[in-house]
Amino acid sequence: MEDVLLGQLDAMVHEKGYPNRSEAIRDLVRRNIVDDEWTDTTVDIIGILVIVFDHHKRELSSRLLKKEHYWEGNILSTLHLHLDHDNCLEVKVIRGKAGEVRDFADEMISMKGIKYGTLVRATSGGAL
Amino acid sequence: MEDVLLGQLDAMVHEKGYPNRSEAIRDLVRRNIVDDEWTDTTVDIIGILVIVFDHHKRELSSRLLKKEHYWEGNILSTLHLHLDHDNCLEVKVIRGKAGEVRDFADEMISMKGIKYGTLVRATSGGAL
Amino acid sequence: MEDVLLGQLDAMVHEKGYPNRSEAIRDLVRRNIVDDEWTDTTVDIIGILVIVFDHHKRELSSRLLKKEHYWEGNILSTLHLHLDHDNCLEVKVIRGKAGEVRDFADEMISMKGIKYGTLVRATSGGAL
Amino acid sequence: MEDVLLGQLDAMVHEKGYPNRSEAIRDLVRRNIVDDEWTDTTVDIIGILVIVFDHHKRELSSRLLKKEHYWEGNILSTLHLHLDHDNCLEVKVIRGKAGEVRDFADEMISMKGIKYGTLVRATSGGAL
Repeated sequence: MEDVLLGQLDAMVHEKGYPNRSEAIRDLVRRNIVDDEWTDTTVDIIGILVIVFDHHKRELSSRLLKKEHYWEGNILSTLHLHLDHDNCLEVKVIRGKAGEVRDFADEMISMKGIKYGTLVRATSGGAL
Repeated sequence: MEDVLLGQLDAMVHEKGYPNRSEAIRDLVRRNIVDDEWTDTTVDIIGILVIVFDHHKRELSSRLLKKEHYWEGNILSTLHLHLDHDNCLEVKVIRGKAGEVRDFADEMISMKGIKYGTLVRATSGGAL
Repeated sequence: MEDVLLGQLDAMVHEKGYPNRSEAIRDLVRRNIVDDEWTDTTVDIIGILVIVFDHHKRELSSRLLKKEHYWEGNILSTLHLHLDHDNCLEVKVIRGKAGEVRDFADEMISMKGIKYGTLVRATSGGAL
Repeated sequence: MEDVLLGQLDAMVHEKGYPNRSEAIRDLVRRNIVDDEWTDTTVDIIGILVIVFDHHKRELSSRLLKKEHYWEGNILSTLHLHLDHDNCLEVKVIRGKAGEVRDFADEMISMKGIKYGTLVRATSGGAL
């Protein structure tokens, strides 16, 4: 490997606290595999949808639940935390084809009353 | 210990699969400590509230959230599972004085639209 | 209904805070249906397993995970809370035949290092 | 706004399915506020740590739990899913100063045996 790249690799090892270069490289490769899973339209992937909302918004929670129950994909589980008198945090583990997971997340995040939302790539780990 | 009690203890060991009598006795004693925590009105206990409801019921989920956010106790976390197109299961870990936890659970369970609800004793484990 | 029973029903309505007698009776009937599900050996039921343990116990968490991954039933989701430096609370939503769910719960609860454990009846709500 | 930017905004509205431009702009502004929270070293932020690991790795789950219980920040809740016979997915909601949350996540993700890990920005919603 060239010196410049090696230097950047070592900086990454140092900054993130990997025990050695091999572990850092292994991580990069796996991250690439997960990215590939997400561009493949034929396999099921796992995503984590995070949303923050104000539960006072008119019927928002009912509208969220309705959209979830009628989605053709699979919402494996939701974790709900009360942040304060107004705000709720929900973390949803969802499984489906990359395209439908992304569309579902976009639909949820763009709903009126959702303050913050983001979709995170995860993996079922089988290919790693 | 008398023979009759010993016989019942052995039956319990056998039925529940404890490795030996001591482990079964330890469990009984701990269970008694947890029961005592729940009759003590001064210490914080941990309870698990399980509810099943139909999310189509008018504004039920909004009403549930409102009640939860304004409760003076502490709802540490909620796990939400979609059982089918209609039914939701929620498991709430709650902390507070035994009396207020019980009252809160009663209020939630008796709400119109809740199909099933039960409050389970747990413990923070500190006294065990 | 006889006066004595009516009196007890009203006491229940008052104590639990039901809006009226009908709601309380509906709850009793549903609770009976759930009990029936749990005595039927042919249908899938849903149970909630609550355990408290000290994570310092040698390899306990690894042994728990191993038992869970090799169980033939279905552990839908686990919620894990750190209670303090030593104690963990886990709530597991499990699905399977009543007998196998009960056996699995007994096996988990009787493991060395588990401080407290209890299995709670829930339901998928379909029959309610 | 210039035509080029307006065009990109409209593309975003279309692609993500926002009801109108205002809702999309609101989202961008809020996202910026969350980013600011994460560069502020004095306020508490909320992060979501996602990890995938093989539970057969020697004592990995025990090592994870130990690191979590001794961390000075606050792990509010963990959601654990069994993906298959080998793989576990954990989603942890954590609260703390941005720096310490990032360091903790780096430490967890770089541990031997972790197949995949990522830290996601969330927010307590108070500033939105």
